[in-house]
Amino acid sequence: MPLISKKALDMPASPIRRLVPYSEKAKKEGKTVYHLNIGQPDIETPQVALDAIRNFEPKVLEYSHSAGFESYRIKLATYYRSIGIHVNSDNLLVTTGGSEALIFGLMTACNQGDEIIIPEPFYANYNGFAVMAGLTVVPVTASIETGFALPPVAEIEGKITDKTKAIVICNPGNPTGYLYSKEELEQLASIVKKYNLFLFSDEVYREFCYEGAVPFSTMNLQGIDDNVIMIDSVSKRYSMCGARIGTMVTRNKEIMSAALKFGQARLSPPTVDQFAAEAALQTPQSYFDNVVREYVQRRNILVNGLNSIEGVFCPMPKGAFYALAKFPIDDADKFCQWLLEEFSFENQTVMMAPASGFYATKGLGKKEVRLAYVLNQECLIKAVRCLGEALKVYPGRTVEQENLNLLQN
Amino acid sequence: MPLISKKALDMPASPIRRLVPYSEKAKKEGKTVYHLNIGQPDIETPQVALDAIRNFEPKVLEYSHSAGFESYRIKLATYYRSIGIHVNSDNLLVTTGGSEALIFGLMTACNQGDEIIIPEPFYANYNGFAVMAGLTVVPVTASIETGFALPPVAEIEGKITDKTKAIVICNPGNPTGYLYSKEELEQLASIVKKYNLFLFSDEVYREFCYEGAVPFSTMNLQGIDDNVIMIDSVSKRYSMCGARIGTMVTRNKEIMSAALKFGQARLSPPTVDQFAAEAALQTPQSYFDNVVREYVQRRNILVNGLNSIEGVFCPMPKGAFYALAKFPIDDADKFCQWLLEEFSFENQTVMMAPASGFYATKGLGKKEVRLAYVLNQECLIKAVRCLGEALKVYPGRTVEQENLNLLQN
Repeated sequence: MPLISKKALDMPASPIRRLVPYSEKAKKEGKTVYHLNIGQPDIETPQVALDAIRNFEPKVLEYSHSAGFESYRIKLATYYRSIGIHVNSDNLLVTTGGSEALIFGLMTACNQGDEIIIPEPFYANYNGFAVMAGLTVVPVTASIETGFALPPVAEIEGKITDKTKAIVICNPGNPTGYLYSKEELEQLASIVKKYNLFLFSDEVYREFCYEGAVPFSTMNLQGIDDNVIMIDSVSKRYSMCGARIGTMVTRNKEIMSAALKFGQARLSPPTVDQFAAEAALQTPQSYFDNVVREYVQRRNILVNGLNSIEGVFCPMPKGAFYALAKFPIDDADKFCQWLLEEFSFENQTVMMAPASGFYATKGLGKKEVRLAYVLNQECLIKAVRCLGEALKVYPGRTVEQENLNLLQN
Repeated sequence: MPLISKKALDMPASPIRRLVPYSEKAKKEGKTVYHLNIGQPDIETPQVALDAIRNFEPKVLEYSHSAGFESYRIKLATYYRSIGIHVNSDNLLVTTGGSEALIFGLMTACNQGDEIIIPEPFYANYNGFAVMAGLTVVPVTASIETGFALPPVAEIEGKITDKTKAIVICNPGNPTGYLYSKEELEQLASIVKKYNLFLFSDEVYREFCYEGAVPFSTMNLQGIDDNVIMIDSVSKRYSMCGARIGTMVTRNKEIMSAALKFGQARLSPPTVDQFAAEAALQTPQSYFDNVVREYVQRRNILVNGLNSIEGVFCPMPKGAFYALAKFPIDDADKFCQWLLEEFSFENQTVMMAPASGFYATKGLGKKEVRLAYVLNQECLIKAVRCLGEALKVYPGRTVEQENLNLLQN
């Protein structure tokens, strides 16, 4: 039997996959499991997008152009311009989800063996895309104490070697919910310029910024037009994750023309989903206003609720729909498994994603978990209550060092 | 400005892309262009599949399972068993088109720098997938004189080095229309077994076999269960190329479990398209009977028509909907461009794919073109007539060596 590849061995499994059998078992035992572990929102897809699917007329479900339907690219460019990102349809490649946009981008920009710097904790699947492209992820650690702000420039520069080819960020961030300021992004721009690197910026959560915060796009950083490759997707914006439609956006003509060759090899992104995505551009502003209002309320319930539990610390996210919290526990992987396997409160429990999977540095994030506030407010209140009760009885509960210090003084 | 990657430079452009501007110009000038250059059939998608799209009910367009919806995988396994391929849903990974199935398969099976042997001419996009996976394509040449039968075992074995990791075939073949016999496949099996290689078999044209020919699946080759990775897709079977739904099929548990990790990284295949693909499994046999009858008639019109033109040779394909023909010309790239740019007959012309793009050996296929018989019979008759007229006036027309020999003797 032939051996499988090194890539196959290196490819990380999903960080929550290990927990799925426990959650299935809990449900079979009749427990209600509150799923805070995945980024699949419960928000309804805009009616215009669903209607486009239901009104699909062609008799032959044909390929689209490899770069995506021209009509969609033109309207998409108009959308970007409406939010202050000045691009035209030539700067866009429609991809099969944001995932493919990042895979094509990395393969087009980076050579086998190159290094990419990513502030950690980061979206775990970036590891997988790096493996596919033959790249090494070099993490630079952001701290929960600063709410996961950009690490200091000197720390990032300290990670740069002659193999460094790109920096990858997600803004607003998954799993942190952190929103980089214009100043932080300008710091990144100066590094990118100084060391001649690509800057990949995953901006798929752009529409989810709170308290009036306006996200600043890397596409608007000055003087690095050829360095920036922006990743986008309709998945979160329109709550249509199952429509695998993303976009690679760049003003770098060489990157765009090479990425199109990758696109031609795989023929085209899904046709019906592009119809839906094109229609979704007509979604009224009121939809987003309602969604953002809802997410703010959910965030407040979750984050304030968590912070009211003794020993739990959760920075207030400014965007996306995730929160990363530190718990007074021995090990988040054990805690998350214990919640599903051994705990219940009024026959309910909670499923969360242990944060270790979001760090590339071994041992980090051991007391942290990611929570996605994609459930309705009532469920979130119950989930937080469950967590409070769980921490009262979890055998691996630790007393925080700070508290110990207080006790000793 | 940072340099783009070696992969980006190595990535081949689509072999027909160069001709597109000429075809667009011809159409703007009012010429009718018969498109024999692409594998986008005009056959209608089965009604059951279109209905599934139009009846899409969920309010949230959610991700599916990374391996594809379980209900679809179960029904798909039933379909395979119904055609004599004994697998269950655990042997299937639903992918975003056959393209992704092959990319995941190659990345899972082969290491950076490995070699894969492919009988040429072969589907040009295999080059692109090899570049993505960091592999070197080693061609073994099949001859138009044998109708593109499998090259002799000794020739294939002669290509094997210590870097060889897999053999890739397409059966029935794109671009040749050749259908490998059970004996030929058993020869491949013996090589695969002897040298401990993977065998990738792209069987997406399975339903298009003519004169009662029954395709033999590599999944039914004895003693190489762990070596075979079969690639499949709904694109051609149901004329739904725009639904990006494929399948990777293997009994090799290590490959399947590693490929699933690649699948998890990109989250899921398209949801609506899976609904359509699942419904398409209900397509009545009469649909296929009609389609095959239609393709046989088209094939006969095209191939007999071509062979009736002096100096043209086209083997009779036994499957798929392509024919590869040799023309009495200096250079097929020039001829195809000339057809679009300078020729017309009754204001019509023909677009074909020069075969050079389907050969990995430089210089081969220079007089050959691939023709896809995806147009209705009336158009095909006109297209063949055009080609006959074109060859009367094409300035680069050559007298065939055989004819020269005849003249000299």
